[in-house]
Amino acid sequence: MKTVILCGGSGTRLWPLSRTLFPKQFYPLFKGHSLFQRTIERNLSHTSEFIIVVNQEQYFMAEDQFRALKVTVPARFILEPEGRNTAPAIALAALAVNSSDEMLVVPSDHLIQNETAYQVAIKRARVHAQQNQLVTFGIKPTHAETGYGYIEATGETVVSFREKPDTQTAQSYLASGKHFWNSGMFCFKADTFLKALATHAPKMHEACVLAWKGSSQNSPARIDSALMKAIPADSIDYAVMEKSRETKVIPADMGWSDLGSFDSLYEALPQDSDGNVHDPQTLHLNSHRNLVVADKRFVATIDVDDLVIIDTPDALLVSRRGSAQKVKDVVAALKVTKPELTHIHTTAHRPWGSYTILEDAPNFKVKRIVVKPGARLSLQKHAHRSEHWIVVDGRAFVTVGEKTFPLERNESTYIPKGEVHRLDNRESEDLILIEAQVGSYLGEDDIVRLVDDYKRI
Amino acid sequence: MKTVILCGGSGTRLWPLSRTLFPKQFYPLFKGHSLFQRTIERNLSHTSEFIIVVNQEQYFMAEDQFRALKVTVPARFILEPEGRNTAPAIALAALAVNSSDEMLVVPSDHLIQNETAYQVAIKRARVHAQQNQLVTFGIKPTHAETGYGYIEATGETVVSFREKPDTQTAQSYLASGKHFWNSGMFCFKADTFLKALATHAPKMHEACVLAWKGSSQNSPARIDSALMKAIPADSIDYAVMEKSRETKVIPADMGWSDLGSFDSLYEALPQDSDGNVHDPQTLHLNSHRNLVVADKRFVATIDVDDLVIIDTPDALLVSRRGSAQKVKDVVAALKVTKPELTHIHTTAHRPWGSYTILEDAPNFKVKRIVVKPGARLSLQKHAHRSEHWIVVDGRAFVTVGEKTFPLERNESTYIPKGEVHRLDNRESEDLILIEAQVGSYLGEDDIVRLVDDYKRI
Repeated sequence: MKTVILCGGSGTRLWPLSRTLFPKQFYPLFKGHSLFQRTIERNLSHTSEFIIVVNQEQYFMAEDQFRALKVTVPARFILEPEGRNTAPAIALAALAVNSSDEMLVVPSDHLIQNETAYQVAIKRARVHAQQNQLVTFGIKPTHAETGYGYIEATGETVVSFREKPDTQTAQSYLASGKHFWNSGMFCFKADTFLKALATHAPKMHEACVLAWKGSSQNSPARIDSALMKAIPADSIDYAVMEKSRETKVIPADMGWSDLGSFDSLYEALPQDSDGNVHDPQTLHLNSHRNLVVADKRFVATIDVDDLVIIDTPDALLVSRRGSAQKVKDVVAALKVTKPELTHIHTTAHRPWGSYTILEDAPNFKVKRIVVKPGARLSLQKHAHRSEHWIVVDGRAFVTVGEKTFPLERNESTYIPKGEVHRLDNRESEDLILIEAQVGSYLGEDDIVRLVDDYKRI
Repeated sequence: MKTVILCGGSGTRLWPLSRTLFPKQFYPLFKGHSLFQRTIERNLSHTSEFIIVVNQEQYFMAEDQFRALKVTVPARFILEPEGRNTAPAIALAALAVNSSDEMLVVPSDHLIQNETAYQVAIKRARVHAQQNQLVTFGIKPTHAETGYGYIEATGETVVSFREKPDTQTAQSYLASGKHFWNSGMFCFKADTFLKALATHAPKMHEACVLAWKGSSQNSPARIDSALMKAIPADSIDYAVMEKSRETKVIPADMGWSDLGSFDSLYEALPQDSDGNVHDPQTLHLNSHRNLVVADKRFVATIDVDDLVIIDTPDALLVSRRGSAQKVKDVVAALKVTKPELTHIHTTAHRPWGSYTILEDAPNFKVKRIVVKPGARLSLQKHAHRSEHWIVVDGRAFVTVGEKTFPLERNESTYIPKGEVHRLDNRESEDLILIEAQVGSYLGEDDIVRLVDDYKRI
């Protein structure tokens, strides 16, 4: 079976952990593993190939995290220049595989804590998929949630899809035993889905076929920007599932959570005897039921209960638990006053590795740069800044002007303003470099790329 | 009049703002000014010379902060190699001035919000001081505080000094109208105090005279370490005031606070309409009566009340307001597990300026170094690390081995492991340097000083 992983989520509901350029599925929340990685791992046993649909900006992060798992199941990446909701993403994946292939479609940013129940549900779903049904998974509600859509079912037969209910309706759904949360997971054969799409959303189907045919189809498949724009945006629920009669639902109780807020994150992570969720480097005196996520800093609490404390290098959130929905109000305010805090972390991921801003002063900037083994930055130049490079770990291969030379650990070089240069790691270990930039303008947009391995010119 | 400022306080009750090497009187809590600076400013009008008694480790900080005020009243510094409580510190100051000089003695870490009342009280105290009295100042209690000593008075006559009371006694003191908080401020002529000391604590008097005679008496006067150790440690209250009959007390209501906890800091700082005390770069949604002290990072709160949130580059404290006394328990725990967090900030002050640790990795370290105009580091070498220096602002004069040369902005140099070197700022502006250290051991104790302007060899 092919497992299609949808990485399109780009929310900031877990701000300041998640940022526009660093959505929550990539944050290492679970002992160094991300939700995306956990999704890969939980699907290994039944997958012959992963089809990973991801925004092109996040491709390198997804690829890095996939590679770090060192799994033997291969992955193909489909890069979207922009999101058009779930139906087109799934259609592109269906076009990428053989028409007779079974597909399991899963989001990358959900948590499933009962994997046995998950496997049982998938096995059951495949029985229907092989009989040309469109199968969805219904999560048994644990509370009267008003934030999700519901599926009403009789056994495995879909009676109807229901919009997000009001509180009273949600309570009746919870009591009924026939209503299930719409989990966003699906199972079907590729041609079953594409035929249903052609029937119920023919324009979308046509646009997706054109986009797929008009794009490079290797891995990563890069969907052409204009063709992607031409695809109508819609969810698989609206575009197909709610209109088709060939649907089935597998009710399941698999410890599912969409981790859509810090409240659900708190519930999903292990609590100590005081009910606190925290990292080992924190200290809690007479404090209870707090969620504390710390990056590098030491955090101490005294006599506080039911708080969410989220500590990142450039932003701190202290919220009451249960108020997680108001994070969006903070993000909305920040988008006006300090948009960079909603957009990117001090550590920014790049196709060749990452950089971390250590100091950002008006006329100089200091970065730690990590270049992955075998990766290199673009051949580039800057109009307004000079750069000093010091290798502190690994070994660099450096181009400055006409010269190319190795730069060993504890060696440095200088790139004058306007000089063409390139940083290359030809070794099998990470290259770590300290870069001091000096100049009157130090914005990331002061860059002219002349040659680039990552097609960013 | 000479104003003697006692800078001996070294507590960590305001941790993580205050650290052992950075006591609270030096933290810029008030629009960029510290309590020490506020103390200088409030005493300018009646002072012909400041006598500043400070631990030698904190001298450069006190001197920097004094100089930054650009006041015309001169200051003399007396550097204690270790603290011996208030009586010896005041005795050394009394020995430093003329015997007929009037002295006003004030702590450096208290806040006084009603400066008119303060000036009125000082005027009244001087009348008694000129008549050879030992004058103390009694603060009119605003609540039944059990953490302070009290003075019982009839008018300006001291009836008795009282130890820290229990709650019931403190309530009776509050009701009496005759009991005042012992503020730790004094006024007397130098010879009045020295005579009283010779009478009531003759060994201390003798040891102080020996220490003063045996030390360099210029500014800064550096008290000899062995002679300082020989002085019995005691407070002025126990050693002199409680034993003397030549005492007066000036009752005053001057908006006094010792800022001994975050609770009193909250009361002392301006609150917004929601009762929050915070910096402008923070955002508070439906949050009330919180004390938020942020360094550089953005802080957001949601639906939280009555919290203390103290954000520093390497440690975060979140406490309930009213639980400030438990900060000492956090500090006690940290002294075992992470002592450096109680000792020093990521920015460390040095006689020549300061350094800030930007990155501290196992085999490399990055610092921003600021060298004051006209200052230079010691001529030094390191056994285990090489250093790369990049000038990002100002102009350096650098010694590396046999060579001495200028290093301009946007220039760099390299100091191999074991090589003698020196960093010197001969300009009238700060020199800012990025230093990348590379080596197997990067501790601050890997230093051999060959020549030093600050007598640290």
